[in-house]
Amino acid sequence: MNLKEEALKLHKENQGKIEVTSKVKVEDEKDLTLAYTPGVAEPCREIEEEEDKVYEYTAKGNLVAVVSDGTAVLGLGDIDPEASLPVMEGKAVLFKRFADVDAFPICLDTKDPDEIVETVKRMEPTFGGVNLEDISAPRCIEIEDRLREELDIPVFHDDQHGTAIVVLAGLINAAKYAEKDLDELEIVINGAGAAGLAITNLLLEVGVGDVVLVDKCGAITPETEGINWAQQEMAERTNKESQTGSLEEVIKDRDVFIGVSAPDLVSQEMVESMADDPIIFALANPVPEIKPPEAKKGGAKVVATGRSDYPNQVNNLLAFPGIFKGALKVRATKITDKMKTTAAFAVADLIADEELAEDYIIPASFNKQVVNKVALAVAKEAVASDLAKREISVLELEKEFA
Amino acid sequence: MNLKEEALKLHKENQGKIEVTSKVKVEDEKDLTLAYTPGVAEPCREIEEEEDKVYEYTAKGNLVAVVSDGTAVLGLGDIDPEASLPVMEGKAVLFKRFADVDAFPICLDTKDPDEIVETVKRMEPTFGGVNLEDISAPRCIEIEDRLREELDIPVFHDDQHGTAIVVLAGLINAAKYAEKDLDELEIVINGAGAAGLAITNLLLEVGVGDVVLVDKCGAITPETEGINWAQQEMAERTNKESQTGSLEEVIKDRDVFIGVSAPDLVSQEMVESMADDPIIFALANPVPEIKPPEAKKGGAKVVATGRSDYPNQVNNLLAFPGIFKGALKVRATKITDKMKTTAAFAVADLIADEELAEDYIIPASFNKQVVNKVALAVAKEAVASDLAKREISVLELEKEFA
Repeated sequence: MNLKEEALKLHKENQGKIEVTSKVKVEDEKDLTLAYTPGVAEPCREIEEEEDKVYEYTAKGNLVAVVSDGTAVLGLGDIDPEASLPVMEGKAVLFKRFADVDAFPICLDTKDPDEIVETVKRMEPTFGGVNLEDISAPRCIEIEDRLREELDIPVFHDDQHGTAIVVLAGLINAAKYAEKDLDELEIVINGAGAAGLAITNLLLEVGVGDVVLVDKCGAITPETEGINWAQQEMAERTNKESQTGSLEEVIKDRDVFIGVSAPDLVSQEMVESMADDPIIFALANPVPEIKPPEAKKGGAKVVATGRSDYPNQVNNLLAFPGIFKGALKVRATKITDKMKTTAAFAVADLIADEELAEDYIIPASFNKQVVNKVALAVAKEAVASDLAKREISVLELEKEFA
Repeated sequence: MNLKEEALKLHKENQGKIEVTSKVKVEDEKDLTLAYTPGVAEPCREIEEEEDKVYEYTAKGNLVAVVSDGTAVLGLGDIDPEASLPVMEGKAVLFKRFADVDAFPICLDTKDPDEIVETVKRMEPTFGGVNLEDISAPRCIEIEDRLREELDIPVFHDDQHGTAIVVLAGLINAAKYAEKDLDELEIVINGAGAAGLAITNLLLEVGVGDVVLVDKCGAITPETEGINWAQQEMAERTNKESQTGSLEEVIKDRDVFIGVSAPDLVSQEMVESMADDPIIFALANPVPEIKPPEAKKGGAKVVATGRSDYPNQVNNLLAFPGIFKGALKVRATKITDKMKTTAAFAVADLIADEELAEDYIIPASFNKQVVNKVALAVAKEAVASDLAKREISVLELEKEFA
């Protein structure tokens, strides 16, 4: 059986991948009176008196909505919300498996940003957090911004920030391994979509040297025509020397290439034209901007991709489970840039300096330590920045995430 | 520990009652490629090509949204949506426990019928059915009507129809036991809210003699002032002799009293004034309209209540799990009145004529046969009335629900 057949079989045999199960037993009348009427009225009353108790008496506090409109699903693009369900269920499976966080897919039958924001707001009572998924840019940025503003629970568009966090984690270690200073890195990012913009933002947040964003029409400056509002905003913060021209031109002398674009856009010669010991993150999936062996031939010091069959896989799995686990644990009301960078450093720190190698700058996706390290970093930062609604000491947190 | 303490402890210890678990294992990279990228793209593609395949490859087909706005919760009334969550989680627990149907609570932060309808419509891609819960009347009727009209999946307001189905089931057996003909029964229903109206509707559907609906202001006729549109509609179909007056007056000579109202509204004398061998369904909870011993003293042949500590408990648990199990199995697009009456007869049939007794006209809530009998009845009726989107033979159904 090939991958296609196996994947279809897995989904069909199980009729999907998730189920909603009970944490309490209901075997007799007594159980019924506790879990349902009349006993259930008691937690209802407690919550009615003090709304925050919903976090004690219900599943809300550990429950994330995985919300999508199906407009930017994997490599499939804009598909029906029904057709995006397998991905959202998959995400829910990963949340449970990697963070013991309950997640539930909500695929929306609307592509209108106003309606998406409105719908998620109306569902807020049920959920402790919102993971936006596979929503096309720049709509996803507007939707996330508005939800972050209007909701009291953490909102996180994983395709943007999950990717950005793991890229930053990898870059921290790659720079260390290549003996380059983070704050001097000259970076070119190819692909100015949702992920590219989020990566750029996070790299600026930690103070890298400079970033030049490149899209199909070449390097982006504030004067570039036809860019969207999000790209315009980012153009004002990047490309210090206002470089223009094609990727082939602007990649010259750069320390780092990060691609979130399309297959085979980078040649060995382009890598050769970069600064010494260049770092290549070729994240287009399944076919990267340049294959690792070719990049190596061009002199790349380190190569990362989005694929599990090459070393250094940039996998969001290293970020989102811990991000939400940490945020939910302290009831963070927001997930800030600082939490994201702290999470990236936590991921990077999992590999000791002396372990760093060409083929080992990013921890393995199944590394069991990742989730708690990330969760701890996020939770601590939430407490430090006064965004945690739950009072908990750092010591307790360290015990919790030991 | 008393009930209150025990109920709070149960909810707190478990942090709510439900969790979202995985039906597939994710232990290594291979698992990941099947359950998530890149393998997950395969079912996505299949569904994109043929939307109905969402029922094969995802959990949708066995997944019910338990939707509430928290406006009519148990005896608590209009509480915050957060405060209603424990009830909705409880419902989800019962769905899973009694029908192996996955159910997920959606408590909405709006009480506006238009917004509720709109929100549920937008969530339709995720769910195979919608169980409306604890929504106040007459809004619940309008909301259900519109959703039934506009959605392609079954919608069912349990507080109305679950109750109506079990009442009808009980009444079928009570009439048999009291040697009264169903189509000659003269019935008075006290309480013209959501449940009272739904019971009335279902009793008319099976052709009982007559129903008089009584509310706080007395018997309802088309001329009664101050009634809402739903009561008005029902007034046109009931009370053939246009009786007016108080419950005490109109209960005289009636065969059946059904109360979905308030404690202690019926006296022994009122029961004495009824026809011979009267049937009493005193369903106010936790304190019934009249206690069974008192009703018996007044000459009641059979007494049913909503309580588990008296015989003949009218418990929705006998209806909604099987209703949805059957409807989901054949992908019924609607739950019709005919499906509801068929379900009621299926519940009634679980007690053989020779087993019928004063204290045994309704099967026990934990009777394991109930769910499949109800499901089979509903599924067969869906197929017969051409409302089943899944093609399945009656023989296969009988095997399925054996």
